[in-house]
Amino acid sequence: MNPTIKSKLSPILQKCFEAKASKKLTFADIGKQLGKDEVWVASLFYGQAKPEEADLKKLSVILDIPQQYLTTDLGTQTFFPTRGGLFELPPRDPFIYRLYEIMQVYGLPLKEVVNEKFGDGIMSAIDFTANVEKVKGSDDSTRVKMIFEGKFLPYKKW
Amino acid sequence: MNPTIKSKLSPILQKCFEAKASKKLTFADIGKQLGKDEVWVASLFYGQAKPEEADLKKLSVILDIPQQYLTTDLGTQTFFPTRGGLFELPPRDPFIYRLYEIMQVYGLPLKEVVNEKFGDGIMSAIDFTANVEKVKGSDDSTRVKMIFEGKFLPYKKW
Amino acid sequence: MNPTIKSKLSPILQKCFEAKASKKLTFADIGKQLGKDEVWVASLFYGQAKPEEADLKKLSVILDIPQQYLTTDLGTQTFFPTRGGLFELPPRDPFIYRLYEIMQVYGLPLKEVVNEKFGDGIMSAIDFTANVEKVKGSDDSTRVKMIFEGKFLPYKKW
Amino acid sequence: MNPTIKSKLSPILQKCFEAKASKKLTFADIGKQLGKDEVWVASLFYGQAKPEEADLKKLSVILDIPQQYLTTDLGTQTFFPTRGGLFELPPRDPFIYRLYEIMQVYGLPLKEVVNEKFGDGIMSAIDFTANVEKVKGSDDSTRVKMIFEGKFLPYKKW
Amino acid sequence: MNPTIKSKLSPILQKCFEAKASKKLTFADIGKQLGKDEVWVASLFYGQAKPEEADLKKLSVILDIPQQYLTTDLGTQTFFPTRGGLFELPPRDPFIYRLYEIMQVYGLPLKEVVNEKFGDGIMSAIDFTANVEKVKGSDDSTRVKMIFEGKFLPYKKW
Amino acid sequence: MNPTIKSKLSPILQKCFEAKASKKLTFADIGKQLGKDEVWVASLFYGQAKPEEADLKKLSVILDIPQQYLTTDLGTQTFFPTRGGLFELPPRDPFIYRLYEIMQVYGLPLKEVVNEKFGDGIMSAIDFTANVEKVKGSDDSTRVKMIFEGKFLPYKKW
Amino acid sequence: MNPTIKSKLSPILQKCFEAKASKKLTFADIGKQLGKDEVWVASLFYGQAKPEEADLKKLSVILDIPQQYLTTDLGTQTFFPTRGGLFELPPRDPFIYRLYEIMQVYGLPLKEVVNEKFGDGIMSAIDFTANVEKVKGSDDSTRVKMIFEGKFLPYKKW
Amino acid sequence: MNPTIKSKLSPILQKCFEAKASKKLTFADIGKQLGKDEVWVASLFYGQAKPEEADLKKLSVILDIPQQYLTTDLGTQTFFPTRGGLFELPPRDPFIYRLYEIMQVYGLPLKEVVNEKFGDGIMSAIDFTANVEKVKGSDDSTRVKMIFEGKFLPYKKW
Amino acid sequence: MNPTIKSKLSPILQKCFEAKASKKLTFADIGKQLGKDEVWVASLFYGQAKPEEADLKKLSVILDIPQQYLTTDLGTQTFFPTRGGLFELPPRDPFIYRLYEIMQVYGLPLKEVVNEKFGDGIMSAIDFTANVEKVKGSDDSTRVKMIFEGKFLPYKKW
Amino acid sequence: MNPTIKSKLSPILQKCFEAKASKKLTFADIGKQLGKDEVWVASLFYGQAKPEEADLKKLSVILDIPQQYLTTDLGTQTFFPTRGGLFELPPRDPFIYRLYEIMQVYGLPLKEVVNEKFGDGIMSAIDFTANVEKVKGSDDSTRVKMIFEGKFLPYKKW
Repeated sequence: MNPTIKSKLSPILQKCFEAKASKKLTFADIGKQLGKDEVWVASLFYGQAKPEEADLKKLSVILDIPQQYLTTDLGTQTFFPTRGGLFELPPRDPFIYRLYEIMQVYGLPLKEVVNEKFGDGIMSAIDFTANVEKVKGSDDSTRVKMIFEGKFLPYKKW
Repeated sequence: MNPTIKSKLSPILQKCFEAKASKKLTFADIGKQLGKDEVWVASLFYGQAKPEEADLKKLSVILDIPQQYLTTDLGTQTFFPTRGGLFELPPRDPFIYRLYEIMQVYGLPLKEVVNEKFGDGIMSAIDFTANVEKVKGSDDSTRVKMIFEGKFLPYKKW
Repeated sequence: MNPTIKSKLSPILQKCFEAKASKKLTFADIGKQLGKDEVWVASLFYGQAKPEEADLKKLSVILDIPQQYLTTDLGTQTFFPTRGGLFELPPRDPFIYRLYEIMQVYGLPLKEVVNEKFGDGIMSAIDFTANVEKVKGSDDSTRVKMIFEGKFLPYKKW
Repeated sequence: MNPTIKSKLSPILQKCFEAKASKKLTFADIGKQLGKDEVWVASLFYGQAKPEEADLKKLSVILDIPQQYLTTDLGTQTFFPTRGGLFELPPRDPFIYRLYEIMQVYGLPLKEVVNEKFGDGIMSAIDFTANVEKVKGSDDSTRVKMIFEGKFLPYKKW
Repeated sequence: MNPTIKSKLSPILQKCFEAKASKKLTFADIGKQLGKDEVWVASLFYGQAKPEEADLKKLSVILDIPQQYLTTDLGTQTFFPTRGGLFELPPRDPFIYRLYEIMQVYGLPLKEVVNEKFGDGIMSAIDFTANVEKVKGSDDSTRVKMIFEGKFLPYKKW
Repeated sequence: MNPTIKSKLSPILQKCFEAKASKKLTFADIGKQLGKDEVWVASLFYGQAKPEEADLKKLSVILDIPQQYLTTDLGTQTFFPTRGGLFELPPRDPFIYRLYEIMQVYGLPLKEVVNEKFGDGIMSAIDFTANVEKVKGSDDSTRVKMIFEGKFLPYKKW
Repeated sequence: MNPTIKSKLSPILQKCFEAKASKKLTFADIGKQLGKDEVWVASLFYGQAKPEEADLKKLSVILDIPQQYLTTDLGTQTFFPTRGGLFELPPRDPFIYRLYEIMQVYGLPLKEVVNEKFGDGIMSAIDFTANVEKVKGSDDSTRVKMIFEGKFLPYKKW
Repeated sequence: MNPTIKSKLSPILQKCFEAKASKKLTFADIGKQLGKDEVWVASLFYGQAKPEEADLKKLSVILDIPQQYLTTDLGTQTFFPTRGGLFELPPRDPFIYRLYEIMQVYGLPLKEVVNEKFGDGIMSAIDFTANVEKVKGSDDSTRVKMIFEGKFLPYKKW
Repeated sequence: MNPTIKSKLSPILQKCFEAKASKKLTFADIGKQLGKDEVWVASLFYGQAKPEEADLKKLSVILDIPQQYLTTDLGTQTFFPTRGGLFELPPRDPFIYRLYEIMQVYGLPLKEVVNEKFGDGIMSAIDFTANVEKVKGSDDSTRVKMIFEGKFLPYKKW
Repeated sequence: MNPTIKSKLSPILQKCFEAKASKKLTFADIGKQLGKDEVWVASLFYGQAKPEEADLKKLSVILDIPQQYLTTDLGTQTFFPTRGGLFELPPRDPFIYRLYEIMQVYGLPLKEVVNEKFGDGIMSAIDFTANVEKVKGSDDSTRVKMIFEGKFLPYKKW
């Protein structure tokens, strides 16, 4: 793992990554056992999501890490993730930059289309889900499909 | 329209927006007549896409703007859009910021999941489409669904 | 008005400010007549809120500006404000900087207290209201009281 | 705790956080025993406030940390906190970003309303308090209420 | 006057500068007639201070500009200066940069000395005055003396 | 001491701070014994000034640190401080920010007043002194007085 | 090796560099044995490329590092490089800055020429190769020739 | 043409672009007539190169613009282009960004390979040429080939 | 002249440049007549230096511009140049960037050498001159020689 | 030595600085023995220059450090310095800032003068030397003289 990113993860999360690697598990494998989507599971490993007690119980079995250890750092009532901040902005990695570029090029068109369809408001990034699918293009090429879905929040007037 | 953004659009695009407003057309209306998706149409209006001759012919009718005028600025073989740059970064508008936040919080998890599913590479932002749908949540709330689809490009080794 | 900010407002909003000044109206005066809070009214003048047809009807009378003129720019179904961007960040004006400083110094403590009280989530800045009150301190000094209230949005798990 | 933030806290503050976690205390619990507001207590833990001798005495009991240890780092006459700097700006965490967004979108309207109500001056961020309350919205939803109160300081002329 | 700075001043302030130049008045000259310090007068010309009705009356005579014109832009109850923002930061002009350098090099030592002398708090930049004097050095050289004085504001605990 | 600042001080300076704290000395106390101003002493502790052999001799006694140790790091002919860089810019701490704000708001007025009084040139930040005094305001309030004095350097023509 | 860059490489890559140095191998030497271009090999050493199992097998022999050690960190199905981020931007090193300068000065001309020759689209930086050659100038001087080649990706319309 | 870029070109260059468009000439067409490479010609149009008298003579004929007009602005002995500055950095347009990304990802590997091949020094960006070719990939795909060639400059020792 | 730079010069300075161009004068030509160095003259044209009455008298003759016009904008007792700010930083033009690069690469070595030779202090950039000479290298190549000379200012202790 | 800079030097360079300090050698002393200029020697110590085998041999004797140790890190054919990056930009130290200020204020004038004297091109920062001299001013003051000399590189046309 990239040492800059690694240094931004707490020790317990680094251990989770090591266990995942040594067991040769993908996020999809873990997600299936947890009953959660692979993207959410990856978010959990990167410290961007807060698991519930039940998730940690299962994770403890999947990764073979004592549950108490996981609970102390990820599950207490007094621990809540501080999100973002894993990498510099603008993003340097080409994969993540493409998301940034989409936001730059299509952000305003997407805003206008959503406003016309839904009214004055936003798509929530909190009450939100993200999924990844593999699809075939018309020329039989492999295509990545990302589905973002968030609650529409209309601006309040007061 | 926001004067800062307006100043970044060429005169012909400003005229397109005015015609759209006075005819009370949505991007969806125009898209239906053009045979193009509403998000792509909005991109065209914001100078982020290059139309073909046939698109301009139809647009000329839809917006009631002489075709030649449209062709000169948007359709010549010597004009190609310089994309991006419509707004400051990080984005200031809350709608667009949410896309930026998704990239910040879920960018690395999405990368990992795509890499695990597709191998070492990226989702193209060029051979790419974006769509917006209105869906209902399980609690009957209104939700925004954005579907991003791009060709998977594997890293070349040489 | 500061010329830098003025240049970021559309002509119709500049006219609203001029009418307000020549009629010596405060935002509170206008708010009372509109049936809206003064902070929301000020947001409207700064292009940070979208009025409804009924608001524009009343505003037309209050400011003595033809309603159609207001509707064309602020009220159509194809116009939605692009928010933010009125000033540089970090803010240069001492008043606005104090809000920025509060966010810097107390942002993390406020996050922790809200998380402990409400769980993992955020205070919405969209389904949100802001009010200003004048209160007396224990030493009889004049104090500014700002009340921010927003819907609590819990993080979705999927 | 997020390792980036942790690295910005002095060892004694890290110990305070650990004691709080192992005793499963909230900031509200500690505040009640200290006779202080929970937001101020959280500020103290994040090194953003300076306690008095009496506060440290009580804190020593609450957290079961020898008073002398607390006094040496947090209470001497030659130690004063250097505030701010706990996270990058613009803030990356969605919770804190919402405060930043409020400042961006409503900062200028709030300034104008305060100026109209109080004259030319600012709300102090030093002679200042912040409180958090849980309230119900008209649709029975849960809402976060933040109350910021600061002394009004008029600009001096000379 | 530097065109970049000029573009940030409102037309009435540009006119004040022109009148001052054509009448060959220094800020000290104007200050004497206004009964105000020269630094405050210069602040007023740069849009960084708000004059009272009586100041405008006198200024109208001094600069030979109709009072009503001054009042409309600088004196209404609905106009309040938005301060700062006249130049880029870090400052590019060597004079102003030296103030920035003093803040960089001596800012922390000044903070520590003030904290030790006054306790935990700050020097207000609002309830604040600045004066400039010409003094002689021990080697008979000419020295600039700047005197900054602001109310001490102790941090509130709550 | 704030761990971020601490990490920017050399080990010998960290030791000086510790000795000062354990002996409960203020910068004023040390200054009196050194025959130097307290602000200069604080600058020395923060690595912003270069002491002479004689200063180190006295400092060794005051802080009870072997002189040789001090000389090796702070006093050799091949060591000269690299100034600045102790904190991020714009400054995050409210105390230091106020100096930054004064520079922003009053920097240009101060420049103009100095130019009018002294001609085209600057106030040196090298041949420079800074002092802090406690004064009473007309309303009996406590006020901080900072006196900055620097040689006037006229621009050379060639 | 520059300590800032070194700290951004994982321990296994640091070891690769050490082995390369102690064996006095150039990237060209290694490339010849690997059957890969020297630029791609250098990218691999800097963590900017992902090797295949077969590459690691050969690398293990060339550098005399146990294959398993290389595989664990560089070759697993759950490790994919996060690219970029090795140095600050704008680049500080004069060599790399020249590439940045070429992009600044000739970026727009190159875009226009490619658009005219290929239509609306980009040169991929993923399906991409880079080579370096040593050539002689007409005046017999030594010249560096860099050949960048990437797939042309036309913008999709939808 | 993008209005932001247009505003950074002098009026004579804007006229050159208009003439080129109305005559439907590509940079390759003009280059052939000028006896110069198309990339250099595009650089000239974007104000990034200085033509000689002879170039202007031919350009005057090609574009049907009076030579004197061209000479005054582009050809005098007292005019020299100030290069760079046509767009924001990091670049926002996806085409130009790819060059930036190549520099980010492959900049250090390219440096190392050049150093190993040529010694300690750089590739000049001044004594430099850039060419674009269209080539076929092994899979018959269309590929962009960019050839950068610059004099090798070894670091001087003194 | 580059339109971005032109927009930062006052109208009188733009006129000076036009007169210089139409008269085909170099800065050296003007300098000879003014009795000033060419670099200082160029600084004057770029608004970075303040001329005296006598300089303006001569300049009026050299450029054939009425003296009063020059005096009003460049010579009054109430006008002083605000220096810097003519271009973005880091500089985009390759010529100016090389000065920036020298400062980056050799700045610290130059500081150390000056400190060792002169003691703790700086080279003034105010009591400062800059000259340019054309010299021959040992290989008969043409070399640029820049000579910077400034007063040494030792740090004051107080 | 400043800990921030120290952390950017490799261990062998830190050792060189220590040896230099304990032997009380200046860069001029070392330069004389090496037969190199003191500025180049200081560059070498700061990792900004690459020594040859012969330089290391002599340096080994001068500093009493085993030659092999020096050669391994500074002299191999596979080590080349990555220059720049020793300090933040804009520079924080007043000495280095003055060079930055000179570039800001006199950069464009110097460019114009060089262009007029040499034609369209730059002064190389690679085929470049820098020297420092101590001179007397006409008023007997001590002045720093810096002499920068670099090869003139004319822009290539192609």
